[in-house]
Amino acid sequence: MPNNVQAITELKSLLGDRLSTAQSVLNLHGENETYFDITPPDAVAFPNDTAEVSEIVKICNTHGCPVVPWGVGTSLEGHALPIRGGVTIDMLNMKEVINVAHEDLYAIVQPGITREELNIELRATGLFFPVDPGANATIGGMSATSASGTTTIKYGKMSDNVMALEVVLADGRIIRTGSRAKKTSAGYDLTHLFVGSEGTLGIITEITLKLHGQPEAISAAVCEFPDTASAVNSVIMAVQMGLPIARMEYVDPMSIKALNAYSSLTMVETHHLFMEFHGTEAAVAETANRMKDITTNMGGGGFQYATKAEDRTKLWHARHNAYYAMKAQKPGTDGISTDVCVPISKLARAMDDTIADVESHGWQAPIVGHVGDGNYHVLFLFDRTNADDLALAKSLTSRMNMRALELGGTVTGEHGIGIGKMKYLQAEHGEAVNIMADMKRTLDPTGIMNPGKIVHQN
Amino acid sequence: MPNNVQAITELKSLLGDRLSTAQSVLNLHGENETYFDITPPDAVAFPNDTAEVSEIVKICNTHGCPVVPWGVGTSLEGHALPIRGGVTIDMLNMKEVINVAHEDLYAIVQPGITREELNIELRATGLFFPVDPGANATIGGMSATSASGTTTIKYGKMSDNVMALEVVLADGRIIRTGSRAKKTSAGYDLTHLFVGSEGTLGIITEITLKLHGQPEAISAAVCEFPDTASAVNSVIMAVQMGLPIARMEYVDPMSIKALNAYSSLTMVETHHLFMEFHGTEAAVAETANRMKDITTNMGGGGFQYATKAEDRTKLWHARHNAYYAMKAQKPGTDGISTDVCVPISKLARAMDDTIADVESHGWQAPIVGHVGDGNYHVLFLFDRTNADDLALAKSLTSRMNMRALELGGTVTGEHGIGIGKMKYLQAEHGEAVNIMADMKRTLDPTGIMNPGKIVHQN
Repeated sequence: MPNNVQAITELKSLLGDRLSTAQSVLNLHGENETYFDITPPDAVAFPNDTAEVSEIVKICNTHGCPVVPWGVGTSLEGHALPIRGGVTIDMLNMKEVINVAHEDLYAIVQPGITREELNIELRATGLFFPVDPGANATIGGMSATSASGTTTIKYGKMSDNVMALEVVLADGRIIRTGSRAKKTSAGYDLTHLFVGSEGTLGIITEITLKLHGQPEAISAAVCEFPDTASAVNSVIMAVQMGLPIARMEYVDPMSIKALNAYSSLTMVETHHLFMEFHGTEAAVAETANRMKDITTNMGGGGFQYATKAEDRTKLWHARHNAYYAMKAQKPGTDGISTDVCVPISKLARAMDDTIADVESHGWQAPIVGHVGDGNYHVLFLFDRTNADDLALAKSLTSRMNMRALELGGTVTGEHGIGIGKMKYLQAEHGEAVNIMADMKRTLDPTGIMNPGKIVHQN
Repeated sequence: MPNNVQAITELKSLLGDRLSTAQSVLNLHGENETYFDITPPDAVAFPNDTAEVSEIVKICNTHGCPVVPWGVGTSLEGHALPIRGGVTIDMLNMKEVINVAHEDLYAIVQPGITREELNIELRATGLFFPVDPGANATIGGMSATSASGTTTIKYGKMSDNVMALEVVLADGRIIRTGSRAKKTSAGYDLTHLFVGSEGTLGIITEITLKLHGQPEAISAAVCEFPDTASAVNSVIMAVQMGLPIARMEYVDPMSIKALNAYSSLTMVETHHLFMEFHGTEAAVAETANRMKDITTNMGGGGFQYATKAEDRTKLWHARHNAYYAMKAQKPGTDGISTDVCVPISKLARAMDDTIADVESHGWQAPIVGHVGDGNYHVLFLFDRTNADDLALAKSLTSRMNMRALELGGTVTGEHGIGIGKMKYLQAEHGEAVNIMADMKRTLDPTGIMNPGKIVHQN
């Protein structure tokens, strides 16, 4: 039987003030950015280093007390909610950049540093860390949830950029996976097993990340389209031609309306692509020109460059605020922000069918997408205290997931499974989910590591 | 107790002529390209499809009979040697290209097709599959061993290019991992667990591979250097500047001598970089010019372009034949071709220290390297019937591995563990090897899947 009370008593004597049971702290660690109910843990621990994480986990393992790692709480499928109580481990005190290897293009960091904090530290080095999910998430959280985002088309997703990990296992053992060499074939790839495991297999306490050179030149562009298909077909053509585009974001008319209102912009309320090009001056100009030709051929118009940093910043700031801009359109509502990912040839159909489904129920829902990856997001805004609305939002989400599977895609390109998508994981992977559960039982026999997420353990 | 005889009897009735126990067939499947003794299996099965692979594995699992998958046998650490007897599964009859998704840039293939066969099939599509380990290996073998090679610096390694797998597990269950969408965060990343697992966790029966657009323009170049450091420093500079170089190979003076003799070339017998550039005409020219400037600044000379296809082919054909060219220098000898990989800032030191160690014993050993990745290969040529020579070759290899670890690298960048590097895997990963063994026991409780490779199971 779990004995959380005994575990917390022992943790208190280990950590002193760095173990909190104050209600305000518990509530803060029970929140989420989507529609799930607030679910506070029994206590929150603030370890200073890996050794303390190991001690915390050992104590919790002894008493069967659940352990949930916490970064800044921006995940969207309830990943960090302690749904069976227990102890949340907040990585706030583990924010160090341990090493920046300039010549070898990697950094070793602790999990609590956010991506923006890391890039501030890197500013003088000529290097940067490109993965950008929008939210200023922690590197630990982004690793644990296999995040990606707007720059994935050029720089890859988290799983492409994590070279090595230090992980605390359920019994407190500390292991190191991967290598700081650029490639390794030494044994099973445990790094990728922990990336995206959402805290259910171990707690990530150190990450070796690939860094990239800050590009010589950056320019951005926006382009208008009459419909989804013309925007998406432009993207398909660019991808097939191998154009080195750093960001390529679809934004639908509803979202444009919200961005105009929220960020004081004056864009035409139609389908848009937001693009960014990184490279040498010559390469950036060549790519932008080619992209202009492609979009024109596909029926796009109003192609506008933004080479000045302040214009680019304004554009991407607006894009990153899309979620909040859209929520601001319906004050007081809750939201389900859900993502799926399909082969890009199926993307226009997947988006159009989803919109048709939404509109057939008299609703509207904005769509934005990392379309170069075939990944799109829909935001359902509704009052969650209205049972009919909640049911409709869930059924629309369900059909969006199943539609992605029918089109050869996945039920989540970047948000992960958490508690929100467990049944769809089963639909997507069938028998392989049993293997995932075997992995979980092998690495966490007592079932304390973020229980109830991704797979059912028993 | 294993009952291989009973398993083979049942397999004979399942497969008829496609189960062979002819000595010539057994011997062929007991060979390897390095110094290990010939180790024939008890039988060789030639399945026609995934369902037959599943049936074969079920029968073998029932009788505790080892199962070893086989592509074309080009691995270098004894991966495919049936060291505990049993049944080798030869994928010769499973060579189909199941689907080429032109718009989505992927292909679905069976494991028995080789990379050159696949590229012939793709020739008319404008797409190609870039991973190139030198040998014309099968896609199944390259996936199972996490191969990479000369183009990794631009196009990534196998693990970057395998999107999804079909795998037959030890009990005959068939699972599907990954997605045909460009990214997925749906559950644990089982794809990367099987890529590089060398047949010890399951048998790969279908692979979904990323394809890439054939570049508009290709040019190649060679450049001479007075020493290792000037060549490697040129590479470091190019990597830091993010120059989009498709291949960047170091070839040492001994290897140049061998290539000159074997391929009728007339290169100066000094340190060389072989380079290839892929992109638009303008980008290729710009990159080549920048690379010429870099190499000149670092003390290189004799920079020569090869824009004609026949010149490029000759160059890379020579590079690919390096292994055979070097063996031809000492006819009748055996070889250990071993690889390690280090952060590139440590590469010149790692290579120079290795050469010094070799020469201090009165030996010579050629070095070639995928230096943009920090990966290099040394070939020890000797008479394996001479116990002193074998012992010296092994001790030099051992120190090369330990040196790579001291410099923050890995004991194998691309050859894998097989039977040759198991003890070094322990040195590299320590406690994590126990977790690898846990994975093995979980997925293969009866221990039939290519036993005795990567990790000790019991």
